[in-house]
Parts: sequence; C-alpha cells; structure tokens
Amino acid sequence: VGQPPHSSERLFQEAPSGVAMGLAWTALGGQTLFVEARGRVPASSESMADATLSLDATASADGTSDVPSSSSKSSPRPRNAGPRMKVTGKLGKVMGESSEIALTYARIFLRELEPKNEFLDHAHIHLNMPEGATPKDGPSAGVTMTSALLSMALDRPVKRDMAMTGEVTLTGKVLRVGGIKEKTLAARRENVDKLVLPMSNQADYLELKPYLRAGLTAHFVDHYDDVYRLAFEDTGAPMPSGSR
Amino acid sequence: VGQPPHSSERLFQEAPSGVAMGLAWTALGGQTLFVEARGRVPASSESMADATLSLDATASADGTSDVPSSSSKSSPRPRNAGPRMKVTGKLGKVMGESSEIALTYARIFLRELEPKNEFLDHAHIHLNMPEGATPKDGPSAGVTMTSALLSMALDRPVKRDMAMTGEVTLTGKVLRVGGIKEKTLAARRENVDKLVLPMSNQADYLELKPYLRAGLTAHFVDHYDDVYRLAFEDTGAPMPSGSR
Amino acid sequence: VGQPPHSSERLFQEAPSGVAMGLAWTALGGQTLFVEARGRVPASSESMADATLSLDATASADGTSDVPSSSSKSSPRPRNAGPRMKVTGKLGKVMGESSEIALTYARIFLRELEPKNEFLDHAHIHLNMPEGATPKDGPSAGVTMTSALLSMALDRPVKRDMAMTGEVTLTGKVLRVGGIKEKTLAARRENVDKLVLPMSNQADYLELKPYLRAGLTAHFVDHYDDVYRLAFEDTGAPMPSGSR
Repeated sequence: VGQPPHSSERLFQEAPSGVAMGLAWTALGGQTLFVEARGRVPASSESMADATLSLDATASADGTSDVPSSSSKSSPRPRNAGPRMKVTGKLGKVMGESSEIALTYARIFLRELEPKNEFLDHAHIHLNMPEGATPKDGPSAGVTMTSALLSMALDRPVKRDMAMTGEVTLTGKVLRVGGIKEKTLAARRENVDKLVLPMSNQADYLELKPYLRAGLTAHFVDHYDDVYRLAFEDTGAPMPSGSR
Repeated sequence: VGQPPHSSERLFQEAPSGVAMGLAWTALGGQTLFVEARGRVPASSESMADATLSLDATASADGTSDVPSSSSKSSPRPRNAGPRMKVTGKLGKVMGESSEIALTYARIFLRELEPKNEFLDHAHIHLNMPEGATPKDGPSAGVTMTSALLSMALDRPVKRDMAMTGEVTLTGKVLRVGGIKEKTLAARRENVDKLVLPMSNQADYLELKPYLRAGLTAHFVDHYDDVYRLAFEDTGAPMPSGSR
Repeated sequence: VGQPPHSSERLFQEAPSGVAMGLAWTALGGQTLFVEARGRVPASSESMADATLSLDATASADGTSDVPSSSSKSSPRPRNAGPRMKVTGKLGKVMGESSEIALTYARIFLRELEPKNEFLDHAHIHLNMPEGATPKDGPSAGVTMTSALLSMALDRPVKRDMAMTGEVTLTGKVLRVGGIKEKTLAARRENVDKLVLPMSNQADYLELKPYLRAGLTAHFVDHYDDVYRLAFEDTGAPMPSGSR
C-alpha cells in the first residue's frame, strides 16, 4: 500500500477557480470527483438596465407616456427567480437537489461574506461533474458543490490537494455521509493530503487502520463555515467573521 | 429505555429562525425530521419598486399620466403567481403538495398576523428537508413546514426542544397522522420535551404505556392557531388575536 | 487491410464551416460521426434593439405611443438564458448533456479568443448528428461538438481529413474515452489521416498493432486548447495566446 509520488490519475493537479475536489463512493470503490463551476453575468443585463432607465427619464420628462414601464422594469426579474443553473454529469435526483441546495446556500453565504458580490444572483451558471458517462448520485457532494460555486464567485482557487465530502443543508450544517473507508483509500491513491469530513463521520475515520490514514490530515467539521475556512484560508479570499 | 442526557444525534440542538422540528415515521421507526426554510426578497425588486414609485410620482406630478400604475404595482405580481418555492429533500408527491399547502396557509396566516409583512409574498423561498438521500412522503409535516415558513418570515426561532406533527389544511385545521408511537419514541430519544400532536391523535397517545411518555409534555391541537401559540409564545413573535 | 484510395463512405470529404468529424464506437464497431452546427442571430434581435430605441424616440417625440415597448425590451433577455440550442440526431441523455457542456465551453473559449465575437451568445443554434435513425450516446463527442460550434462561430472549416474524439469538461480538460481500437479502424477505413485523441488514451493507441495505425498521425491532447490548435491552424482562424 505504498504511495508512489507520481502515479495519480487525478483530473486536476492544480485546479483553477471554480473547481473543487470531492470524493465519491461507488460499487467499485472510492474515487475523486471534481465539480466544475463556470458562470457569467450576461452583458445584456447591464445595457438593458440602462435602456430602461433612459426610457423612464424620457417618459417622465414629457409626462405623456403610455408605456407600461412597469413591465419593462420587471423584465430583469426572471434573472432572480431562484437558481438559474445548468447542471450536467449524469446526476441522479438526489444529487440534482443537492446542487440546488448548494446554490441557495452559497448565495446566502456569499451575501454575508461579501455583501456587494452579486455574482451568484445574476450569473448564468453551469455546474459540471466529469466524467459524463458515470452515473452519480447522493447528497455527499454538497460541500464540494458549494465550494466550487464560492470559488467561482470569489475567483479564488480552492486550496490544492484538499478533498472534501459532506451533505450541506440550507443552514450550513454538514451531515454524515457513507463510504468513509473507500473515500479515504481514494484520497491516498490520488495524492490528496488534506481531507475535510463531517464531524459525525469522525468515528468512522478513526476506526480505520492507521496505515490507511498515513500521510493524510483529516479535518472534521459540522458547519460549512469551517469547510470554507479550511478550503480558502491563505488564498486571499475573505474570511467569515465570528463563528457558530 | 433510559434517556441519557447527551446522546442526542438531533441535527439542531438550538435551531435558527426558519427551522422547525417534525417527526417522521418510516419502516425503520420514528425519527426527528427538520424543515429548513430560507428566503430572500430579491434586491432588484426593491430598487425596481423604487424606480416605479419615482416614475409614478413624476408622472402624477404633472397630471397627465396615463401610466398604468396598477400594472406597475402588479409588476411584483408574477412572483405571487402561486407558490414560488423550491423544495428539496427527496420528497414524494404528497409531501410536495403538503409544502404547497403550507406556503399558501402560512401566507394567509401571516397576512392576518402582521398585515405589513409581505415577506412570504415576495421572497424566493427554498425549503429543504435534510437528509437528502432519505425518501420522505406523507402529509404529516404540514404543521412543521408552516411553522418553518412563519419562523423565517417573522425572524423568530421556534421554541427549542419542541417537535410537532400534523397535516394542515388551507383553513388551518390540523388532521390526524400515523405512527404516534414511533414518533413518541423518537422524540424521547432525541431529548425533545414538548410534543404538538393533532387532537384526533389524543387517544393514540394516551394509550401508550406511561413510561414511553415519561418526560414529555404533549399538547393536542385541532387548529394551526394553537400550534403557532405553542411554538412562538415568549419568543417575541406577535400572537394572533381571538380564537376559533 | 489495405486502404483503397476512393472507397470512403465518409459523409463529408471536405466539410464546410460548422462541421467536425468525430469517431463513434458501437456494438457494430467504429465509425465516423459528424457534427453539423448551424446558427443564425435572429434579425429581430438587432432590429429589436434598433426598433426599441427608435420607438422610444418616437414615443417620446409625439407622446402618443401605445406600443408596449417594454416587452420588446424584455424580448432579448431569453436569448441569454443559458444554452439556446436545438440538438437532433437521436442522442441519449449523456450526449445531450455533452452538447450543453460543449456550448458553454465554446462560449468561454470564443470569449477569450475573439472577445467581440458574440455569435454563440446570440445565435439560435441547431446541432445535428446524422444519421438520425442511429441512436448515439456517450460523452466522447465533446471535443467534436465544441469544434463544430467554434468552426461555425468563426466561419472557418476544421482541417480536412482530421477526426477527433474526447470528452470535454467546462474547464477544457480532455478526458479518456472508450473504443480506441474500433475508432482507429474506422478512421483508416474512411481515409482520415490525422487523429486527435485524449492524452489518457495514448497507451491504448500505442498498444495497437503498427499496421492498424499505418498512415495515421495521432495527436494526444489533455486540453481543448490543443484540439483547437490542431483543428484550426493554417485555416486563418485566430490562435489562442499562451498555453496551459
């Protein structure tokens, strides 16, 4: 069970902003599972707003407008109508819902962290989980999806060689997941050196034989705040104030 | 069947606003089932509203406005076009419908309670029921969902250590549910001390062996008004006037 | 296993802009698989913008307009609402998702390559994979679809006699695919002379008997940047700066 230094087949060695590394557990064992988030605020949304404003100015100037300005105002509305995200990667129903929870929670988290950063509210987001032919399901990529979305919105890469797993809830709780042994084996095989695991999985991890954990540093968390601190500290990303 | 003081694996010990504790009943027994509600009135709708107001003001100032101010007022309308809510947590059809009933009824209830509080009419709401991999169904989380929504809209936490179960109707009736024994066992195991149960389940509860009910205070209700009073009294939340 | 000069049944000998040649792998063996992309920026979107502007001018000029200009303004919005693409060719779910990844990535790629080229953001695009009666699935046409979309947007044909295969991710990674042997046989049969394959398939290719590879030049890539360089060099298309 030696760990040759360069045998990793991990998709990313150093990942760009918007990418986070998770751990999946399948019938065939554990494996790293990346989440890629890309997004862009459509250019038309700014110019649109301007056009609307100038119309209003004109209309009020001569006071005779019959233009239903309200509905021109409501035109940007749909942009905010909840998650606007495309998700690909052969995801099952639970993982699809997990991506929606991740987006809602990342929006809440970002609003507290950087109130002026509205990227997640306005961008068209595409979340992809390679490899597209492999079916994926379950809620345990919640923390990974949340981190990928925040990494994209902050334009800061997640700390390298860190893999994470855990269901996330709308209030940021990090819930227990399955397959800790298989995920740990996968992490070692792929030369991960930092693991972020749910606090409620601590016993599962500690009962693994020590040689299976050699070379890994595991962090146990029960709130996403701590996942975030671990994933983004020393990257220049803003840190949340206080703790819970 | 002792009740050790710190063995609870309950997801929340002290829950924030927007979270309520229910009780589920599955083939494997009873368990606590939390509902998390998060929501936000989109920023663009305020600035939007402001813009609309100033336009209307200007237009009416010179007395020539033909601005369909009703439709400018109705611009937020599409947001009200039925429940605007995302629901996650592997819910079956009945529980999905139950969430819609909860939202409609919470809106009605809030309108009577705090007429100026339009949060539930304007916010984009996301309701989540951890744990995402566990299928959930049935109408008995109705009172819990309603309470989570009201807690969010009022920004008041539900009283701690209280669990509730009951179908709710659009007129606030609280209907009988199944699994009272299993739910009671789960409540004790998770250190709940106050139960809110449908009045029509009173006999089911009272026929349980006394030691199964030790340490629990059960409240029996037939209208959501009483669920609300129990869940929010002494929290600073407004109380409904009168009774039915 | 000779290679008669004119026996190819390949659909295109010289393909126009918007077409790229891939390689499919089915139970019946390998075959070439073309992707056709056609698109057009709807006239209404320019004229719409113009019309809106001139309408506003008119409306404020004579103050009597009753035209709901607002809705003409909101009309361009939906164009940006994520991929607006029709996809045909009896594609399975994975290949459908693959086409969405290809479009998102081609948009990102084009934005870096030619920032003023907004074709992929505004056009109504139709992607077709003949032959329509043959079911197709899997992610390995990702690089081919991306190349077809870029070829269309740049109006430059892909280099002729080049076939490619590989899953593409949202960050441009090119991932391993299956059926290298069958695809190589198909490429030779169809008189392809340049192959673009994922770097992670290099071993699969090199272990093929040399006579199976005779006449083919294979290029191994791990990022779409390199697919692009190979497919469009010397065609007059702009080249990406730098490398990764």
